[in-house]
Amino acid sequence: MTQLEARSPVLSIDIGGTKIASAVVDSEGFVLGKGRVETPDTENDSVLCDAVEGVARAVLAEAGMTLDSIAAVGVSSAGIIDTAKGIVVFSPNVAALRRTPLKSMLGERFGKAVSLGNDATLAALGEWEFGLKRSVSDMVYVTVSTGIGGGIIAGGTLLGGACGAAGEVGHMTIDVNGPACPCGQHGCWESLASGSALAERTVRRLEDGDASIIGELCGGDMGKVDAHLVAIAASQGDALAQEMIETTAYYVGVGLANLINIFNPQMILLGGGVTKIGPSLLEPAARIARERAYVTLACDVEIRTALLGGDSPLLGAAALALGAL
Amino acid sequence: MTQLEARSPVLSIDIGGTKIASAVVDSEGFVLGKGRVETPDTENDSVLCDAVEGVARAVLAEAGMTLDSIAAVGVSSAGIIDTAKGIVVFSPNVAALRRTPLKSMLGERFGKAVSLGNDATLAALGEWEFGLKRSVSDMVYVTVSTGIGGGIIAGGTLLGGACGAAGEVGHMTIDVNGPACPCGQHGCWESLASGSALAERTVRRLEDGDASIIGELCGGDMGKVDAHLVAIAASQGDALAQEMIETTAYYVGVGLANLINIFNPQMILLGGGVTKIGPSLLEPAARIARERAYVTLACDVEIRTALLGGDSPLLGAAALALGAL
Repeated sequence: MTQLEARSPVLSIDIGGTKIASAVVDSEGFVLGKGRVETPDTENDSVLCDAVEGVARAVLAEAGMTLDSIAAVGVSSAGIIDTAKGIVVFSPNVAALRRTPLKSMLGERFGKAVSLGNDATLAALGEWEFGLKRSVSDMVYVTVSTGIGGGIIAGGTLLGGACGAAGEVGHMTIDVNGPACPCGQHGCWESLASGSALAERTVRRLEDGDASIIGELCGGDMGKVDAHLVAIAASQGDALAQEMIETTAYYVGVGLANLINIFNPQMILLGGGVTKIGPSLLEPAARIARERAYVTLACDVEIRTALLGGDSPLLGAAALALGAL
Repeated sequence: MTQLEARSPVLSIDIGGTKIASAVVDSEGFVLGKGRVETPDTENDSVLCDAVEGVARAVLAEAGMTLDSIAAVGVSSAGIIDTAKGIVVFSPNVAALRRTPLKSMLGERFGKAVSLGNDATLAALGEWEFGLKRSVSDMVYVTVSTGIGGGIIAGGTLLGGACGAAGEVGHMTIDVNGPACPCGQHGCWESLASGSALAERTVRRLEDGDASIIGELCGGDMGKVDAHLVAIAASQGDALAQEMIETTAYYVGVGLANLINIFNPQMILLGGGVTKIGPSLLEPAARIARERAYVTLACDVEIRTALLGGDSPLLGAAALALGAL
């Protein structure tokens, strides 16, 4: 590797269920350009790769660059990924990704080395590499969104596991008799503490006839009930909405306590849309996590919101590509 | 460090609720001598250290050695340990260990560098360092005994966490509405899948009047019902005993699935008295773990029994002392 290459920016790509984002990121984590397109509704992985290539080339062009100017490509994807083989094994919300050799497919298109990782795991890496690395060696990142994902920094290294699929914290069972989860099991953390769980629980109560302004706020369309809407209702003093947030905070806290007991982290970083509800969710969740965790007898843990927001998987993918150089 | 010191054996000590064991171990993991005494029934940490020093000196003498011949001391203890400070914060079954600075107390007595760690965590290290290190980089060790403990090797390193208290897998909640746990919480893995949980569940059913030969086997003394006795009854075709083992296997499997999802390990090693029940427990537990784990979509995990048996914490403490040299 020449010194020029070491300083060259990398191209990063984040493939999600609704959008594909791309950015050009320099070696310090500065974003030199970014853009996004809608994820195409297809089961054809070539069509998906067309969309990825399209947005990436548009972002490069807008930054006044070509593929020649970049050193490597980092790709973040939702789903279970075998990073050792460079394959997206299964991605619940991207129908085109089923045992898809994304690393080699995109490697051929870009003519560059491609690194691949799970979006929540790379979000953890992004938060750490471009922010907390100097002060924190043991950190758990959790994104509470439609689902729940996570990434772990242990002893100053991103936890990968046998084939890079570690960090699926959303699918740890916290209530063995709990509700069904999209993964096929029951009582996963995700099935109780995610944005979807919050929405489903709220809709069930509305359908049971509980009084609330939520029905009004969503114009009677229960499909529009989400964490954001419940938060608005709660801020207006709606008792049902407040109860729903409290219940969600409780389940968030139970899962965090498990992770504290397992990892004894210095810090837990919380990201994802549900955390935007703010202190009414985060404070009780953090309190319950500390109370339930046994390991806090030895040392406390800092629990705070993530710093980079929605860009964290893009920055993590960039960090992965930079690290692979 | 001179080359002589590097080759010198270390002294290892394992402090548990019923016994204190000690061994002299060479740098290859060979045990040159070992012994044990009963843990004194005391709240006085000096009295406890007297017992530790006594058994250690006896083991050394029997091996024809003195403290001069050993390079360092490794200490394993049950309980929550702040390894950074060298303190046993809390050990449920050893009353003398309450915020006890064991590292410095034993360091003064032996005049050697002392390393300190949790028994289950060090058992993991022992199993790995003197056995699996060459072939396995990501491993979860779980001991299912009176309680449940664990230790994790991630990316070829023992997972310590912020202050060395990581690995308290027994206190992850798997049933948020579950039974009380000695830690003060409810529905911890330990409260459902440990030897104590198996015994309590069985006694409850016997007291409810369920037909079983267990009552006969324990001579009517319910205090004698344990995993071993239930296993004997099951092997004689006792339906209640078989059901109790099946239920325990189910809960063991649920917790293992969580750890697979979180760590994506190559291997899970199971130790502890309850695993001596054998295939009737281990096979369904492994099947349930694989079925429930989401991450096994990407790659499988080997689930097997531990190799070193009850000596693993002693060997782990030796590995810790050798690693600190």
